[in-house]
Amino acid sequence: MLMKDGWFFEDDMPFATAIKTKGSLYSKKSKYQNIEILDTVTMGNLMLLDGKTMVSEKDEFYYHESIVHPAVSIHPRPKKIMVIGGGDGGTVREVLKYKSVEDIELVEIDEEVINVSKKYFPEIACELNNPKLKIKLNDAIEYMKNAQEKSYDVILCDSTDPEGFAAGLISKDFYKNASKALKENGIYICQSGSLLIQENEFKMSLENIRTAFKYVDAIVSMIPIYPGCMWSFLIASNKPLDKKIKNIPSGKTKYWNEEIHEKLFAKPEWIKEKYFSLQAVK
Amino acid sequence: MLMKDGWFFEDDMPFATAIKTKGSLYSKKSKYQNIEILDTVTMGNLMLLDGKTMVSEKDEFYYHESIVHPAVSIHPRPKKIMVIGGGDGGTVREVLKYKSVEDIELVEIDEEVINVSKKYFPEIACELNNPKLKIKLNDAIEYMKNAQEKSYDVILCDSTDPEGFAAGLISKDFYKNASKALKENGIYICQSGSLLIQENEFKMSLENIRTAFKYVDAIVSMIPIYPGCMWSFLIASNKPLDKKIKNIPSGKTKYWNEEIHEKLFAKPEWIKEKYFSLQAVK
Repeated sequence: MLMKDGWFFEDDMPFATAIKTKGSLYSKKSKYQNIEILDTVTMGNLMLLDGKTMVSEKDEFYYHESIVHPAVSIHPRPKKIMVIGGGDGGTVREVLKYKSVEDIELVEIDEEVINVSKKYFPEIACELNNPKLKIKLNDAIEYMKNAQEKSYDVILCDSTDPEGFAAGLISKDFYKNASKALKENGIYICQSGSLLIQENEFKMSLENIRTAFKYVDAIVSMIPIYPGCMWSFLIASNKPLDKKIKNIPSGKTKYWNEEIHEKLFAKPEWIKEKYFSLQAVK
Repeated sequence: MLMKDGWFFEDDMPFATAIKTKGSLYSKKSKYQNIEILDTVTMGNLMLLDGKTMVSEKDEFYYHESIVHPAVSIHPRPKKIMVIGGGDGGTVREVLKYKSVEDIELVEIDEEVINVSKKYFPEIACELNNPKLKIKLNDAIEYMKNAQEKSYDVILCDSTDPEGFAAGLISKDFYKNASKALKENGIYICQSGSLLIQENEFKMSLENIRTAFKYVDAIVSMIPIYPGCMWSFLIASNKPLDKKIKNIPSGKTKYWNEEIHEKLFAKPEWIKEKYFSLQAVK
């Protein structure tokens, strides 16, 4: 992370998003990571975990709507949900727009992320006290190993990059455990990195998830503050993924709508050829 | 433009793309603007005009395929084409993938951009000597004023930001002249800026183009090196825009395909509501 003349950008990659800041609002090491909140000129408050861009007030809806609606809207009747990571509460907020949802478990390892989000991102964290939500302060890898079989309708992995304590979240074992924890028609979705600068991470995640689920597809969305912006999500199930919308979120959305829904599943030609052609899937 | 510790980014906006560079390959003031070519770590050669990011070798296809294929593929029989700006040759290269195209005029004010592109971007400039191409070293605003009426099938405005000598390219008069120069079922397309940080430019361009054409729509694409990445294009005609693909480009594409084609016309909910709802169009 580089902070120079008021500009922040992640300088450990050769391509980054530079954001002009007005200063730091919070900076503290939790048990697991450095948490920093920057006050930016145009993106509102910005959260960094170990120097990595996580979420900004202004563009958070692109990310949260991209991870939630493609998966939850196509499930016939989503009732029981698990969210991994996502301590800022944005994913939970979007999931709760579905009336059928009765029960959400938020498996966040770091309580400080939750506390800081409530203070600095009130519009994102607005549902973190919802009675349908159970917060589990656990390591998701252990939690998934012990999860009850065939009990979740949708599992959403809204994690940091798969490094350090989060590295196991794209392993074959983790995906296998997630596959077991889902009901027969359950759906798994996870963020899988930048297709511009983290293609190796996407590739590894895709190879591993294919060993655990019968049907795997990718979503390509736009997250303006993430480097290269072209962001991928993997979506998987053991039943064919019928992409028709079956549930409409009751609250307003800012990015997602029916047209965007279908388009999220469209892939740039080079991605389609390299990873989703008949040869690539073999 | 800021160049520090090998990083380049446009620091005149509070949000930018930071690109790690290895050095400068060319830097010279032409009659119209500063032209600079940087050698970057992951994006290949990068062209800046007056310090603004124009094109990089690695991601140029997102831009060029986004401006060309949505417009040219839906025209019933594109034969005569005008390209404004686009001296790097990328737009011309994509247009020439349509077998029916007989005649392209490239109206580029700055010959130096063409010369530099041939040297530093050979894969982008590869068709700049094609016999179907006529290069017109003219100011596009004057050129359009004097263009023969009802003579072009598609006009593509691949210009820099509408500032300085390019400011007139989003004026009502310019759009009116373009509308006149097109055949009855002709199609106009232009880049219209970042929806994240240049919304005012998009708004003004949209308001003006609506005074000159009966049917106007927007395309939202991803251009990884452009700030905020979420890039807009306006597409307009005096006949209803039938978005069905009627011509398939004969050469290979890396981004565009039939699914992406439809995706490009889908708009984030906030854009749809604000600019393309019934109220917004009134």
